[in-house]
Amino acid sequence: MSDLKATSTRMPVIRYRNGVFSTGEDLVIREVPVTLLLNNHEFATMVCSPCDLKEMAVGFLYSEGILQNPVDLKSITVDEGSRTIKVETTADSLPDERFVKRLVTTSCTQGGPSLYFFNSARKVVPVSNNIKITPREILFLCDEVDKNSPLFRATGGSHSAALCTRSKVVVFFEDVGRHNAVDRICGRCFLENITMSDKVLIFSGRVSSEILIKVAKMGIPLIAARSAPTELAVSLAKEFGITIVAFIRENRFNIYSNESRVVKDN
Amino acid sequence: MSDLKATSTRMPVIRYRNGVFSTGEDLVIREVPVTLLLNNHEFATMVCSPCDLKEMAVGFLYSEGILQNPVDLKSITVDEGSRTIKVETTADSLPDERFVKRLVTTSCTQGGPSLYFFNSARKVVPVSNNIKITPREILFLCDEVDKNSPLFRATGGSHSAALCTRSKVVVFFEDVGRHNAVDRICGRCFLENITMSDKVLIFSGRVSSEILIKVAKMGIPLIAARSAPTELAVSLAKEFGITIVAFIRENRFNIYSNESRVVKDN
Repeated sequence: MSDLKATSTRMPVIRYRNGVFSTGEDLVIREVPVTLLLNNHEFATMVCSPCDLKEMAVGFLYSEGILQNPVDLKSITVDEGSRTIKVETTADSLPDERFVKRLVTTSCTQGGPSLYFFNSARKVVPVSNNIKITPREILFLCDEVDKNSPLFRATGGSHSAALCTRSKVVVFFEDVGRHNAVDRICGRCFLENITMSDKVLIFSGRVSSEILIKVAKMGIPLIAARSAPTELAVSLAKEFGITIVAFIRENRFNIYSNESRVVKDN
Repeated sequence: MSDLKATSTRMPVIRYRNGVFSTGEDLVIREVPVTLLLNNHEFATMVCSPCDLKEMAVGFLYSEGILQNPVDLKSITVDEGSRTIKVETTADSLPDERFVKRLVTTSCTQGGPSLYFFNSARKVVPVSNNIKITPREILFLCDEVDKNSPLFRATGGSHSAALCTRSKVVVFFEDVGRHNAVDRICGRCFLENITMSDKVLIFSGRVSSEILIKVAKMGIPLIAARSAPTELAVSLAKEFGITIVAFIRENRFNIYSNESRVVKDN
């Protein structure tokens, strides 16, 4: 049974339902970076739900071929405070560097809002663009993206990302990986010199911290997604001045951060 | 507009609908490993849809902080045959090793069924267990998992994985990351010495190559998922003797490989 208290948290939301805004609270899934030390060497940072970290680490190391039999595991210690898992194996050395997989994505310095990105030297600059968009426009753009996602319609296996003005889709990509779909948008805009900072991103997937960081680096002020956001993504969005709209359905959605960009329909 | 011819492929399936099996064909999403060479150094292998690779590479490098302005990009060459993207930037050196992110997951040697896993020295042994399961049992287990996924019900942001016998759930985990949910199953079984090779895995997410490889390493003969499989996952499943059941809905599903494990209800 999942430990809801550890793995989710209550956050304020603005709800939009059939033309009416209201304030409320929503249970949002937590997502935390956990560092795995293998024989005293930093091996990987896993972004995961904060529970059952022993199982998480052992399963990951098994999948990586580091652990194969119970005798391979000398000790495992979880430090909940620093979110560190120390694993000692009977083979003291690290595996061949070529075989090392680093899941490193993001990490927070403890106790503060400032962030340190292991995976990039690039600093994220808070988004300042004050674009406004109405619920009708958001719902229209989502419909457009759905109607024009042939790979998803054919296979059910892709994610869509679309960079849009308030009234139309400007760049659109589908990919088997949701991160890739966002990267492709960025690549096209880079190659064709398309401004991203005055547009919104319509996205079919969940808004995880990794997706939010991509959006922040692209300077996009608003992401509107069909699926759920994570707590870490919402915290980052608040820090970076980004609006997260999520759980978009036929005539409703929730706003998790910087709601002033979403204004009433005329 | 997505190039459906490049990004999906027709595969034979066995359909189960309301008690009746039939043969058919299904469009399955493709997923290919693409190697990114940055200034003649292998930088990352991205598993993605095989189209618009230039955008893919540029967006990824932008997100990683390697490319920031159009002047940073000296040249980009895509070799569709070897699925290699060569990028030259004005900074010839690689970024600090600590900042390098390797998305390396899986790769196929060209033209043959044999596989080489960059991310693990561990060899996958084909699964031989001849477990049988009926449609009613599969649908029952899926219902059980759905009913008992409190984190998903509360937040809509998690994935579930459950290791089951034909009649009941033995190990269950939810996680914000779908790979983590599977790793946790593996970790619990490793720590508590629970046999995996005579059980099935019920999974809420898509069956990608990375998930399939995890299942193969765990020795689990059958994965049954709510969502779509990828072509690469189906090919690997055929090679490793694993059964993929996917697109499970109230009273129907498709079987993509090794269908003999799914037998008629009594």
